[in-house]
Amino acid sequence: MRGYGMFSVNNPGWLEKERPACGAYDAIVTPTIVAPCSSDTHSMHGGSGPKENMILGHEAVGTVVEVGAEVTRFKVGDFVVVPCVTPNWLELGIQHGKSFSHDGRPFGSFKFINTEDGVMAEFFHVIHADANLTHLLEGVTPEQALMTVDMMSTGFYGVEMADVQFGDTVVVIGIGPVGLMAVGGAALRGAGRIIGIGTRPNCVKIAREYGATDIVSYKEGDIVEQVLELTSGGADRVIIAGGNKDTFAQAIAMTREMGNIASINYYDARDTLSFPALAWGLGMANKDIRSGFCPGGALRIQKLMEIIKYRGFDAAKIISHTFHGFDAMEDAFKLMDAKTPDLIKPIVYIDDL
Amino acid sequence: MRGYGMFSVNNPGWLEKERPACGAYDAIVTPTIVAPCSSDTHSMHGGSGPKENMILGHEAVGTVVEVGAEVTRFKVGDFVVVPCVTPNWLELGIQHGKSFSHDGRPFGSFKFINTEDGVMAEFFHVIHADANLTHLLEGVTPEQALMTVDMMSTGFYGVEMADVQFGDTVVVIGIGPVGLMAVGGAALRGAGRIIGIGTRPNCVKIAREYGATDIVSYKEGDIVEQVLELTSGGADRVIIAGGNKDTFAQAIAMTREMGNIASINYYDARDTLSFPALAWGLGMANKDIRSGFCPGGALRIQKLMEIIKYRGFDAAKIISHTFHGFDAMEDAFKLMDAKTPDLIKPIVYIDDL
Amino acid sequence: MRGYGMFSVNNPGWLEKERPACGAYDAIVTPTIVAPCSSDTHSMHGGSGPKENMILGHEAVGTVVEVGAEVTRFKVGDFVVVPCVTPNWLELGIQHGKSFSHDGRPFGSFKFINTEDGVMAEFFHVIHADANLTHLLEGVTPEQALMTVDMMSTGFYGVEMADVQFGDTVVVIGIGPVGLMAVGGAALRGAGRIIGIGTRPNCVKIAREYGATDIVSYKEGDIVEQVLELTSGGADRVIIAGGNKDTFAQAIAMTREMGNIASINYYDARDTLSFPALAWGLGMANKDIRSGFCPGGALRIQKLMEIIKYRGFDAAKIISHTFHGFDAMEDAFKLMDAKTPDLIKPIVYIDDL
Amino acid sequence: MRGYGMFSVNNPGWLEKERPACGAYDAIVTPTIVAPCSSDTHSMHGGSGPKENMILGHEAVGTVVEVGAEVTRFKVGDFVVVPCVTPNWLELGIQHGKSFSHDGRPFGSFKFINTEDGVMAEFFHVIHADANLTHLLEGVTPEQALMTVDMMSTGFYGVEMADVQFGDTVVVIGIGPVGLMAVGGAALRGAGRIIGIGTRPNCVKIAREYGATDIVSYKEGDIVEQVLELTSGGADRVIIAGGNKDTFAQAIAMTREMGNIASINYYDARDTLSFPALAWGLGMANKDIRSGFCPGGALRIQKLMEIIKYRGFDAAKIISHTFHGFDAMEDAFKLMDAKTPDLIKPIVYIDDL
Repeated sequence: MRGYGMFSVNNPGWLEKERPACGAYDAIVTPTIVAPCSSDTHSMHGGSGPKENMILGHEAVGTVVEVGAEVTRFKVGDFVVVPCVTPNWLELGIQHGKSFSHDGRPFGSFKFINTEDGVMAEFFHVIHADANLTHLLEGVTPEQALMTVDMMSTGFYGVEMADVQFGDTVVVIGIGPVGLMAVGGAALRGAGRIIGIGTRPNCVKIAREYGATDIVSYKEGDIVEQVLELTSGGADRVIIAGGNKDTFAQAIAMTREMGNIASINYYDARDTLSFPALAWGLGMANKDIRSGFCPGGALRIQKLMEIIKYRGFDAAKIISHTFHGFDAMEDAFKLMDAKTPDLIKPIVYIDDL
Repeated sequence: MRGYGMFSVNNPGWLEKERPACGAYDAIVTPTIVAPCSSDTHSMHGGSGPKENMILGHEAVGTVVEVGAEVTRFKVGDFVVVPCVTPNWLELGIQHGKSFSHDGRPFGSFKFINTEDGVMAEFFHVIHADANLTHLLEGVTPEQALMTVDMMSTGFYGVEMADVQFGDTVVVIGIGPVGLMAVGGAALRGAGRIIGIGTRPNCVKIAREYGATDIVSYKEGDIVEQVLELTSGGADRVIIAGGNKDTFAQAIAMTREMGNIASINYYDARDTLSFPALAWGLGMANKDIRSGFCPGGALRIQKLMEIIKYRGFDAAKIISHTFHGFDAMEDAFKLMDAKTPDLIKPIVYIDDL
Repeated sequence: MRGYGMFSVNNPGWLEKERPACGAYDAIVTPTIVAPCSSDTHSMHGGSGPKENMILGHEAVGTVVEVGAEVTRFKVGDFVVVPCVTPNWLELGIQHGKSFSHDGRPFGSFKFINTEDGVMAEFFHVIHADANLTHLLEGVTPEQALMTVDMMSTGFYGVEMADVQFGDTVVVIGIGPVGLMAVGGAALRGAGRIIGIGTRPNCVKIAREYGATDIVSYKEGDIVEQVLELTSGGADRVIIAGGNKDTFAQAIAMTREMGNIASINYYDARDTLSFPALAWGLGMANKDIRSGFCPGGALRIQKLMEIIKYRGFDAAKIISHTFHGFDAMEDAFKLMDAKTPDLIKPIVYIDDL
Repeated sequence: MRGYGMFSVNNPGWLEKERPACGAYDAIVTPTIVAPCSSDTHSMHGGSGPKENMILGHEAVGTVVEVGAEVTRFKVGDFVVVPCVTPNWLELGIQHGKSFSHDGRPFGSFKFINTEDGVMAEFFHVIHADANLTHLLEGVTPEQALMTVDMMSTGFYGVEMADVQFGDTVVVIGIGPVGLMAVGGAALRGAGRIIGIGTRPNCVKIAREYGATDIVSYKEGDIVEQVLELTSGGADRVIIAGGNKDTFAQAIAMTREMGNIASINYYDARDTLSFPALAWGLGMANKDIRSGFCPGGALRIQKLMEIIKYRGFDAAKIISHTFHGFDAMEDAFKLMDAKTPDLIKPIVYIDDL
């Protein structure tokens, strides 16, 4: 079968591979819509270490074409939403409970583009189908569902890790697709003031629609100083959803004592993170720093679809570009790699719905 | 000074009392708007035990007329929002942390109508003014602020105790003023489906505006069966915000295993609460039962005002009746006691704004 | 194969059954030591509903005799400790996270004597062996390990649900085998004063060895009054590990405001639990009530063995009677059913070690 | 009155000052035993910024010599234990709840040597006596009580922030007086394996007595590698109770995915903390980093004394040097500054008991 991916670092292209085999508890799915993600291009450039001959892509909705003998909740022909994080539920790491992201080793639950071929292919394999796939919830569009599997799940996890409480002032640094979801999640979690940090007009527009009350831009001056002034001394919670390694120290500096910092950023394997002890209250200011990977499993995605359906949260609003046809995955991937100013999130309709 | 209250159980009326004295850390406030509450009429009827010669009322916004020598954040003439729960912050019960409601004994932080005269008077006393009073937040109306001090704070506390997570299905039993706030709080906390249980058309209308997706009425059949059918086996969280002692068992029965029940109901001192062990999974189903009193202190009210301002949550929507003039407190109180079908929440403008 | 169990309610005896089949992810184990439990006799008497032709027993250590093709961590001949709660990890209930006790329905993770034959047989089946079995930790005896699989795991879960904090005063009602473990767990969790409620001298002796500082007996008067006097108004945490349906109200009455009650008792399907609203602070005293089932999976048992090994906690101290030989399971079961005054916990060595 | 402190940075000595005045809610105490702390010498050397004419010392037990008119729980002549953190309970920072360490600004609750003169004086002032002082618990010695006010409270807070669960493997980096308390706290919290990192024989001896199962020394090689080898991939929780700014990265590197790091170290205002993104799982490994200041208030100290009394935890074991007489405070302070190899914790009996 064909799939789009990487031959080696910095060497993307079309791969020809065997169709994956289906275990007794597993399923084979053919994608209907896929969304390239910056993690795909990041991997292609070697940001998560050397990889070879790997099909990329980890965001998809599609149709089941084969199920293992022990699968009970799905059958061939079912239209399914595929979480980007699909744990092996029999690994002991699961039993620690923390978001099920690390089944047997750090982010071991992230199979696609990591230990298995990704979804930008004619077919892809899903481990433990009963626990990792879910049907589309009535009232949710396939495009909205597609946005839950990584973007919304990761952005909302930032809000959960930040432990946003009623009325809190929340800063979201970076308002790309994941940061926008963090803005929307903070609003849905009962935050008070929500300060988005970013500059691109299309992102700013959606940030406001999702609930941002203030927008801060580095073009207007130091972002730490701007936040400290707006908040009279620091925000309750700061979510890092963009920027680079230097953003880390800025986030700490703009958080009040007893506040939390949650990072959902993907740092580069070559980065060193650093911050002045003074900004962290000399280690005495009770500023907790949390970070984590997108939670795994089907229930998570079902819950997010409930929000879309019942709260009227339009997760598809971040889709800025649409492509059509299997071969268009290459164009979409290249656009994601180019990160043009107008890009937020591209999707590819492999089959028209 | 004059105040409206109770001479003894079932004997309400106008009392003549000394103007309260102001301690070094305290303040004396004259009310501008007050709102009678069912706890006031409940007390008058002896529901919280015998009381004599007590001015009632615990929901007010007003103007500071005197401050103690040690008060730093307020001065005479300041317009203030007064939490209905005003702890003595020097009691050790505070240091347990749990919502600051029980300073030195069970609900010891609830001073008005409990250990001190209430707010339906020419003047009332507020202990520890710096910690218990707050200024009106710009962008919030006095009427909205008045609704935060008990109704919104208690209703939202139900949501917090229920530990509503993203996408949860939440049932709110009882959609009077506090239950409506619980509906609004659940929506603001990121619930998915929200099922309000009630019948009155004016309450149903506001419940839907605040975020309820379904309304269940006892007139249509057994409410447990209706919820079990709607939810395919039980809700994630159930908030008890009305009903009577029998509601307790219903709430447990309509909660799924591993779900939570949060009660913000005020049971009668003569009630016995009971439920079948089977509905509680024989004590093995991990259905937690929580209950608690409205949280105390100024910060809580500030946070709630932030939600009104930044999330556009109109807390004043539950105000169904308005009265004017000091003497109208009696009419408002009697209306609250009568609980006419069209009543949700009455307020009394003592001074026109 | 032979196994000891129940033909029907109140009709115990030796059953002849097919040796269970082994799925691809599963294992077949032959028991080396088993321990009958009051849940077994309770089931035999119909306390958890009608059951027929069911082999009983859910506490065992033993030897693997067969593994499915996909099992990676175990091989034939391995000596294993078997948690009494062995979830199907592919069920969605797992993804709620709460102790993994309810995989697909209330206590669905409890397979033995519930949906499958138990361990008092020549062979028994363990679902998802890699996630549900564990090897014996060096430094831990088989008898100690056997006590982790239900007694220690359940007793310690009571401590966890009660959320015991440093220095808390903890009451444990009932000092049978599970209650003794709750005493030991409270001591290991950093409680201050620990009050055990019970009367039997052998249990009292072990309670003191495990860390109880006070023993209260109903023979000396009302237990609520005694605890209120000892604690000047109520304990911080109360763990219900025995008694009957009336114990529930007593536990609530002896808990201070803002304290917690945790129940690890197994109520009868015919019980109604009830308590006066006054003892619960009219629903306003922030006394949380939690209950739950023994946590599931291998990691839990590994953690408990670490405590035995590194904290020197002798979990085998509660073993009061030992039997030898496969046929002696009947005698042990009958002793458990008789509940003689000197009985705490019996075990049966099917093979001598 | 006389007191020992600093004239300016690096300029310690005896100061002559006015006896402090007593507010209405406050008390004046004369110390009976004091313990110099490395925070005192650290301040003297300018580690927390410039300070002038400040009496040092923040660990004391003593006798009340004056109480304000509103104090109800204490009277002149009472022997009291004085928490090192004594919040102003009327500040809004208290209402955030997180350990009450930051009343109005970062560590604002730490009054002694920070915003007020310390305890190494003839008299010292305690704000809000009813909430900040406590009587000695029967069964606890004054020396043990003295060790609760900072050493035990801070060390145990490290354990709380690390959220140690039953059976967890815990590393404590640094086994000076606070680190030793963290070891003891981890054992009392139900940890499994406890790895202390340190070298001094007297500290190692007490670490083992307090519950350490393994000792790792930097003299034997890289401490990260040693811990990774001992734990097969990382500890569940790592508590930083010593070292320097470089310890921070080591702690992160020796923590497993989903584990926690808790820092109770006092970094220098001139430090920069840094760590490789790779050791933090590229920000995706759910390794939470927490830090915080010693909790404030009387209840905390009461709870710790309960542990000493009922668990038999001898907090005085860390006292390595004793001095006698008011003037000996200077010698004790200089010893603390010299940090001789045999020093753990010195105390000064101002009056013989």
